[in-house]
Amino acid sequence: MDIVRGFRCIKCNKYFAANYADLVCDTCGIEGILDVLYDYGELKGKISHEYFTDASLPASHWRYRFLMPVEYSTSLPPLEVGNSPLYRWNNLAVRYGFRSLLFKDDGLNPTSSLKDRASSVGVAMARQAGKKRITCASTGNAASSLAGNATAGGLESLIFVPGNAPEGKIAQCLIFGARVFVVEGTYEQAFELSMECAQRYGIYNRNSGINPFLVEGKKTVSFELCEQLQWKVPDYVIMSVGDGCSLAAAWKGMKEFHQLGLIEKVPAFIGVQAEGCSPVYKAWKESAELQQEEPQTLADSIAVGTPRNWRKAVKAVKESSGIFLTVSDEEILQAMQEVGRETGICGEPAGVTCYAGMKKLAENNYFDNDAEVALIISGNGLKDVSSVIKAAGGYQKVPPDIEEVARNIL
Amino acid sequence: MDIVRGFRCIKCNKYFAANYADLVCDTCGIEGILDVLYDYGELKGKISHEYFTDASLPASHWRYRFLMPVEYSTSLPPLEVGNSPLYRWNNLAVRYGFRSLLFKDDGLNPTSSLKDRASSVGVAMARQAGKKRITCASTGNAASSLAGNATAGGLESLIFVPGNAPEGKIAQCLIFGARVFVVEGTYEQAFELSMECAQRYGIYNRNSGINPFLVEGKKTVSFELCEQLQWKVPDYVIMSVGDGCSLAAAWKGMKEFHQLGLIEKVPAFIGVQAEGCSPVYKAWKESAELQQEEPQTLADSIAVGTPRNWRKAVKAVKESSGIFLTVSDEEILQAMQEVGRETGICGEPAGVTCYAGMKKLAENNYFDNDAEVALIISGNGLKDVSSVIKAAGGYQKVPPDIEEVARNIL
Repeated sequence: MDIVRGFRCIKCNKYFAANYADLVCDTCGIEGILDVLYDYGELKGKISHEYFTDASLPASHWRYRFLMPVEYSTSLPPLEVGNSPLYRWNNLAVRYGFRSLLFKDDGLNPTSSLKDRASSVGVAMARQAGKKRITCASTGNAASSLAGNATAGGLESLIFVPGNAPEGKIAQCLIFGARVFVVEGTYEQAFELSMECAQRYGIYNRNSGINPFLVEGKKTVSFELCEQLQWKVPDYVIMSVGDGCSLAAAWKGMKEFHQLGLIEKVPAFIGVQAEGCSPVYKAWKESAELQQEEPQTLADSIAVGTPRNWRKAVKAVKESSGIFLTVSDEEILQAMQEVGRETGICGEPAGVTCYAGMKKLAENNYFDNDAEVALIISGNGLKDVSSVIKAAGGYQKVPPDIEEVARNIL
Repeated sequence: MDIVRGFRCIKCNKYFAANYADLVCDTCGIEGILDVLYDYGELKGKISHEYFTDASLPASHWRYRFLMPVEYSTSLPPLEVGNSPLYRWNNLAVRYGFRSLLFKDDGLNPTSSLKDRASSVGVAMARQAGKKRITCASTGNAASSLAGNATAGGLESLIFVPGNAPEGKIAQCLIFGARVFVVEGTYEQAFELSMECAQRYGIYNRNSGINPFLVEGKKTVSFELCEQLQWKVPDYVIMSVGDGCSLAAAWKGMKEFHQLGLIEKVPAFIGVQAEGCSPVYKAWKESAELQQEEPQTLADSIAVGTPRNWRKAVKAVKESSGIFLTVSDEEILQAMQEVGRETGICGEPAGVTCYAGMKKLAENNYFDNDAEVALIISGNGLKDVSSVIKAAGGYQKVPPDIEEVARNIL
């Protein structure tokens, strides 16, 4: 590899050279997720604020390719991932007792979720490895983003989903031509099937629970945030947490830009889980090993009972001096409505769980008056229309008679 | 107004000064839609290719504000509209016997359709007029984009939809806090209610059938296309047609950039209607006045039986040396699947109707070997999940058993 310098196991700290061929640590096995290392010293001389003023850089997340694991000789898959809008809503911040509230709408990615950042890198790495097929198990967004990025990138995708994935996400997989296997069983069983398929048939494995490269795509959400804020990072970044991979990735992005001297401080990371599925929160709170849970929340994208990146997420929150908290499904539905009405952003339940967390913290005076808080809206509400309707409430049926309407609008 | 120079009635050609207060021609009434005029001579000296290299210009469609009707003193609504990705798929073009095929994915706008371009301008103009409320009747996308842009822009929206609008679009309206009236009647009756409401209560009228300013937002899709292609315009632009407003707008955009000397030629515009609702096609084919129709197509966004901008659309196609054609619902569903599998773009039925038209024309050798064809994908498939599933076909249910999976994938 011409960019990656090596790997380090997040469990036992063992170092591997850049040409290490396996996806996980040879000692720790599936729990030994690898962290990708770069030569930050070398990059520091080359990458300055000035670098990003080059108009020939792509607008997509590939503008950060110098810190992404895809070799320069590998041709990139075509979907234009990243470059999602960042909105500032200071009136809302003031209502909640702090200075500035930012919304990064990652639901406007090509397949409508943050997962496109990971899947695009997965597809690129599969191409680099000469693979024609790629697989993952997913409750939804990882699957649909993989399906879209794979087909645009000329790969066949094999998707394993549990039976309870929302229809919109399965529909996306299908329209992108993925081979979709709806597993009559749990998410865990879907995951095992995907893992076994990858191994048995030499199919590229895009399960973020083991693939170290996906984080390298997800972290670009932080890179963009830094650049969009002209290198003045917020005090807090709040993210919804299922597996823990996205939060850990965003933290890595901040640390890396800090190491390159592009930003002067790093934000505290706050992870929000649904009350009905909060194993990462509990592991953090009790400083204990993770206990599996049976998920019971409508926020399907973060209903992960056996998160595999929990260690990384807990570490990220601790290192950054942040916290974890949980919110109820009722609070998540309220957040969908409030975000929609206040900002014109339609987020899926897991997409706005971070907002519910912000609200809860603000109501407990967690933030300074002067704080700036950034929320990562990770998925589009159109992926789960039934939850949107549940959150939004009903509408009025009227006969075609202006007097009837008049009675309603005055 | 500081940018608009005047208006001209598209029916009787009557000229109105920039301070004309009504939305339609005082002679022709509702059929007298006005065309917005600018001082192209003055702009020609100021707007060159060089102008667009200014990094301080917004990335959104407001970068073209010099040809948009919103006064410079009016504060703009916040959603970042436009700047949608453009993909080139030459392998597909070659399969269909021509050189280059472009997809502009306008389903990645903030509320997931091209209509955001119009609604954002509508909301800005309402603010400019000091209005607090804005209304429209719509089969879906105009409504949901209005709801999103209005709420982000601090306005209340009143939306009138006929009973058959897809659930995803109504859900968006609701989550954005719109007052949604589902009219127990036809689209025409919903339209009449909206018109009457606007008049009776002084609510800003965002019906594209009468409001001259919406076109001025929609035309930015052409501006972006020109800029993204570094001013080398395609030979053909193909668009799905319902009301006719979007196609007429895109044509106006091309003509204006040509007039400013930014592009050397203009493309031919091809309008595609659904067989089950093709009044504009018929008016063009028979060079006759429009005959209303009862729409019968699954492409709800172009199921407009009483298009109000048909004159403009027919004129655009004639002036540009293009044509109209129709495609069946079956061909539209096939297009959804083919676009999804080939490009990773998930379009709603009306969003990919243009692709079905391209295919039909290509199969009849309409395009030169050397032709470049651009398709405007006007809406996201997630807005209409049931049609996506209809188009994509089913999936396999498997028990959690690798041998079962193995039988399926080999």
